[in-house]
Amino acid sequence: MKQLDIVIKNGTILTMDPDNSIHEKGFLGVTGDTISLVGTDGNAPPEGEKVIDARGGLVLPGLINGHTHAAMTLFRGLADDLPLMDWLNHYIFPVESRMDADFVHTGTLLACAEMIMSGTTTFCDMYLFEQEVARAAHLAGMRCIVGEVLYDFESPNYGPVEKGLEYTEAMIREWSADPLVSVAVEPHSLFTCSPGLLVACHDLARKHEVPLVIHVAETLTEIEEIQGKYRKTPLAHLDSLGMLGPHLIADHCVHLDQQDMELLHENDVKVIHNPESNMKLASGVAPVPDMIMRGITVGLGTDGCASNNNLDLFTEMDTAAKLHKVHRMDTTVMDAITVFRMATIEGARALGLEQDIGSLEVGKKADIIILDTQKPHLTPLFNPFSHIVYAAKGNDVSHTIINGRIVMEDRRLLTLPLPDLFEKVDNQANRVRGWLGT
Amino acid sequence: MKQLDIVIKNGTILTMDPDNSIHEKGFLGVTGDTISLVGTDGNAPPEGEKVIDARGGLVLPGLINGHTHAAMTLFRGLADDLPLMDWLNHYIFPVESRMDADFVHTGTLLACAEMIMSGTTTFCDMYLFEQEVARAAHLAGMRCIVGEVLYDFESPNYGPVEKGLEYTEAMIREWSADPLVSVAVEPHSLFTCSPGLLVACHDLARKHEVPLVIHVAETLTEIEEIQGKYRKTPLAHLDSLGMLGPHLIADHCVHLDQQDMELLHENDVKVIHNPESNMKLASGVAPVPDMIMRGITVGLGTDGCASNNNLDLFTEMDTAAKLHKVHRMDTTVMDAITVFRMATIEGARALGLEQDIGSLEVGKKADIIILDTQKPHLTPLFNPFSHIVYAAKGNDVSHTIINGRIVMEDRRLLTLPLPDLFEKVDNQANRVRGWLGT
Repeated sequence: MKQLDIVIKNGTILTMDPDNSIHEKGFLGVTGDTISLVGTDGNAPPEGEKVIDARGGLVLPGLINGHTHAAMTLFRGLADDLPLMDWLNHYIFPVESRMDADFVHTGTLLACAEMIMSGTTTFCDMYLFEQEVARAAHLAGMRCIVGEVLYDFESPNYGPVEKGLEYTEAMIREWSADPLVSVAVEPHSLFTCSPGLLVACHDLARKHEVPLVIHVAETLTEIEEIQGKYRKTPLAHLDSLGMLGPHLIADHCVHLDQQDMELLHENDVKVIHNPESNMKLASGVAPVPDMIMRGITVGLGTDGCASNNNLDLFTEMDTAAKLHKVHRMDTTVMDAITVFRMATIEGARALGLEQDIGSLEVGKKADIIILDTQKPHLTPLFNPFSHIVYAAKGNDVSHTIINGRIVMEDRRLLTLPLPDLFEKVDNQANRVRGWLGT
Repeated sequence: MKQLDIVIKNGTILTMDPDNSIHEKGFLGVTGDTISLVGTDGNAPPEGEKVIDARGGLVLPGLINGHTHAAMTLFRGLADDLPLMDWLNHYIFPVESRMDADFVHTGTLLACAEMIMSGTTTFCDMYLFEQEVARAAHLAGMRCIVGEVLYDFESPNYGPVEKGLEYTEAMIREWSADPLVSVAVEPHSLFTCSPGLLVACHDLARKHEVPLVIHVAETLTEIEEIQGKYRKTPLAHLDSLGMLGPHLIADHCVHLDQQDMELLHENDVKVIHNPESNMKLASGVAPVPDMIMRGITVGLGTDGCASNNNLDLFTEMDTAAKLHKVHRMDTTVMDAITVFRMATIEGARALGLEQDIGSLEVGKKADIIILDTQKPHLTPLFNPFSHIVYAAKGNDVSHTIINGRIVMEDRRLLTLPLPDLFEKVDNQANRVRGWLGT
């Protein structure tokens, strides 16, 4: 038997394997970066270099945030409740046009701290200065897919878009051997990218066999604009460019017709659902129950902090479960297990990482969280899936392990010093106030 | 100057007075059960018997849960995602028919622990064995309005409904001098109470000048049933019985027509909005922005834990703010201040307690919470109202003070011993498992 570097005992293990198997009073062993032992309910736990007592709590796969703009933590609460164009033109765009690598680095560190402390172990990011996102995630010890946002106009990071494609390709090469960071090609959207740019992005992604990430069909304005320009729905437009396929990660997909869903399904396109952002920005309600019924892979994301305003996937699960029930006037859609799978194994599948993460199974990477249930709002415990989706919050997570490394222990973040981070965040927030003249 | 029993310093005080005044680096003094000093920004804080350092956090009025069934914490996660009638017939009704005073006492203690630890200082309850709710709230040190649920059929508590009216009147008399507990008359709904019972309830409430609390217009099924029986909407039915008035607290009000809203407004009826429950039970989306625009007083509630499944008013505020934006496709409705007022001063007004609670003003009762913002998900801080509604969670509350008594300090619950409580909860949960044969 292998040496066990970490043993987690005295917890209920929710594996999220294909049967959603549960091991009550089970244990879990980690060797190096890998899960080497799961289950064996009721037996005495084996010895390990480090033993973590889950104290009767829940042992879960780390959560997967399928879509975010991490550094936008620095815009948290900057402006809410405004008409979309006011919000973009008077707050988000003026600030984004001035920001720099330092800003993105600090904002991403803050996002990583928040995500680790709320049980997220993997995120898929799209933003500017994405090299800094990779570096910050590396410092924090988080798993991620990162990609520089690409569009037709000049970027404050790389300038003209040709340079953006070069920047992306250089990042793909630089991080190719990294155990945690991988790089995707990320055109912003169909309304900010010409067909030529979209195809160039697709070709680059296929050349390096990396994911292609894009916002699709998020708002009715987008649908109208694409219909007006190309006489097609956004998905039909992507199809006509030959871009649909299993490596395409389509964020949002709020406004779809039956044919769009057929295209998603036929081509095994992956979808990331962002219910809180879609609600806060009044974008609409994505037809997630329909997509899941068709067999489309749907993961869950928080989107950026300017439109949420947090990165807590527990409350995102709660919202996802409830929103569709009232939207369909059907209490049975989006049951707790379905929603928890979206935040774990289905999220992994959406990002093309299901071989490595998303469930607690021997041979997978050790991305594990422990949920402390010794709290009034998590008792009594009749059904662990119900508690995860409908009652728990991110700060009920006591431990976070990523790739076999303990990054949070008893709510102490081990990879980043919070006081330093808060000081950096304050400095960047003051820059934002200066830029906006407030 | 009065002796100050408690001084809270080094916080940003959000008063929720009529101007929503904010005192940065202000302080707040408590004498006995009353707020005796607020504000005076930047000056040195005065001496006090007990000094609490808010460490740069937010000092807020305690939150007001306008509608719950506290003891239903013991059904948390028992059954979700089921068709309504399956859920009621196979889980809720079989358990409720067997439960007793002990069960309700323990369930309410658990609810009080959860509420205090998530910043709620006042709740309005409707359930069976309500005397135990009053006793448990008294033990926990919470402010509440309680009332035995009354309906046409036999109750496992009091038997026939005449006894229920007597039970209610006895409770009104018993608790009349209590500083924290007050008693309301609480007929369950229009579809479970005959017109005769409704009028008897109304008369009893008016006799003692106490609130009258009832579920109204929660589901489409109810609307159809009342229309079928009385050829009227639920509100028109209540109007025809002469029951509308400022002391009527109407829970839910999901399905209203223009005339119903006019009736609510004309008669100054109070409404409690329960967005998460209405979503989870697929009841519908209440026209809250319309009601507020008309000047109707709307408070916020969590409803019971079987349909939520927690009592956290912070996430309830978040959901309230977002749900109506997507429902109206309008980002500007239900802004953060409006929603926070629903959980504080408007909630107080809804319960008829606005003279005593709901804002931090000199002369009001000292129901105060402190929100610890030294956390990644609450930084940076551009707008405190935004953080409260869109980013904070109940367990970010560090201190809870009710009627001048510190009931939680640095997240230690001072009024109830949690290990004992968890043992009692486990015992009751085992009874539930026995009743259901699971």
